[in-house]
Amino acid sequence: MYMLAIESSAKSASAALSKDGRLVSQYFQCSGLTHSRTLLPMALDLLKSCELTISDIDAVAVSQGPGSFTGVRIGVSTVKGLCWGADKPAVGVSTLEAMAWNGECAAPGSIICCAMDARRNQVYNALFTFEHGRPERLCPDRAVSLEELSYELKQTEKSVFVTGDGAELCFNCLTQQGIGAVLAPEPLRLQSAWGVCRAAEGKPLCNADKLLPVYLRLSQAERERQERMDKQQK
Amino acid sequence: MYMLAIESSAKSASAALSKDGRLVSQYFQCSGLTHSRTLLPMALDLLKSCELTISDIDAVAVSQGPGSFTGVRIGVSTVKGLCWGADKPAVGVSTLEAMAWNGECAAPGSIICCAMDARRNQVYNALFTFEHGRPERLCPDRAVSLEELSYELKQTEKSVFVTGDGAELCFNCLTQQGIGAVLAPEPLRLQSAWGVCRAAEGKPLCNADKLLPVYLRLSQAERERQERMDKQQK
Repeated sequence: MYMLAIESSAKSASAALSKDGRLVSQYFQCSGLTHSRTLLPMALDLLKSCELTISDIDAVAVSQGPGSFTGVRIGVSTVKGLCWGADKPAVGVSTLEAMAWNGECAAPGSIICCAMDARRNQVYNALFTFEHGRPERLCPDRAVSLEELSYELKQTEKSVFVTGDGAELCFNCLTQQGIGAVLAPEPLRLQSAWGVCRAAEGKPLCNADKLLPVYLRLSQAERERQERMDKQQK
Repeated sequence: MYMLAIESSAKSASAALSKDGRLVSQYFQCSGLTHSRTLLPMALDLLKSCELTISDIDAVAVSQGPGSFTGVRIGVSTVKGLCWGADKPAVGVSTLEAMAWNGECAAPGSIICCAMDARRNQVYNALFTFEHGRPERLCPDRAVSLEELSYELKQTEKSVFVTGDGAELCFNCLTQQGIGAVLAPEPLRLQSAWGVCRAAEGKPLCNADKLLPVYLRLSQAERERQERMDKQQK
């Protein structure tokens, strides 16, 4: 089974292709260019380079959030378009769960702390352990302050493996608090479509119509609108 | 400084771009297609996707061996062509040293065992430790039998982190011998152009004319010719 995966939840973007759960190709970019220009050409170049077309693909997976409002929108929209055009099923996975596959190289017994910079002193976060060859979830995806996260991790007294685009932010905060933290090596630090392939394995396929972005907070525009409405009501 | 790197020493092929030592983009493929068809298009697609051309690149790095006879030849020839055409300097690095950068996530104090399947019960191998943020070499690149390698590693009584396209072969042999071995996680197991970028950093640039493939053994054709000549002499 060929699975194509798309990841564009933050600054980096990537496309990956797996066959029966093994990595065939991955195309990763963190150039600062907008995903709406780079993502689809990356996916199509990748298929072409493997002498495949979208019709050879059995399912298309995407990280559906949490993440940057626009990044997640672009990823999910791209996959909806691809699936609709080629009549293929889709799979949506949590960005943080996809990232947890980076924890395969963490020391046994560590907590895998997946962290994306959510601005305003928060991270999008979920905690995992890596057991029996796959991540086991310890809490739901959430938006949490660095202070709360540090406090929670300090209680566990375990070594923490930090990954994701918010990993450095988190690592600095944890080490300041005296928590034993390990930063994921650079090629495994940012979210990647390969993680999306892994997280999508065995998940039920859906019609791409049903695919929705998952945000844990209101967008800036929605928040500001809400604030304005609250003020008017006072 | 922009560095483009090319890796095609075995079954997988990849191209990567770094800027001042940070990964901008990597394109990896292990589809079984021949490198002579996939490698150069991957490198050029990658530059195009980053809105760059070869004229923006400051140096081109390549893994010059050891490795598959044809794979190394294709990588080195491609880089010679690119550098000659665009008047850019080149850097050649050991395939095994590039691979040692995968050991960044190994447990502290481990031996990083880089292994490529060299057939005939041998591996191309070099040993490293990962210290002060970079691999430190413990022995020169060599072709060694799995038995000799296991014997040597057993003496060290250290945990061994195994990476490279010969990693599984090596891992199975080491664990059978009761040696504590850890297999590199899949996205860090095969050789990658990102490792070539890292290994090339700080190495002197050369004129691509001077770039030569590095083989540790005679090719099959040369070996068979030598055997025929030896027989005729008897």
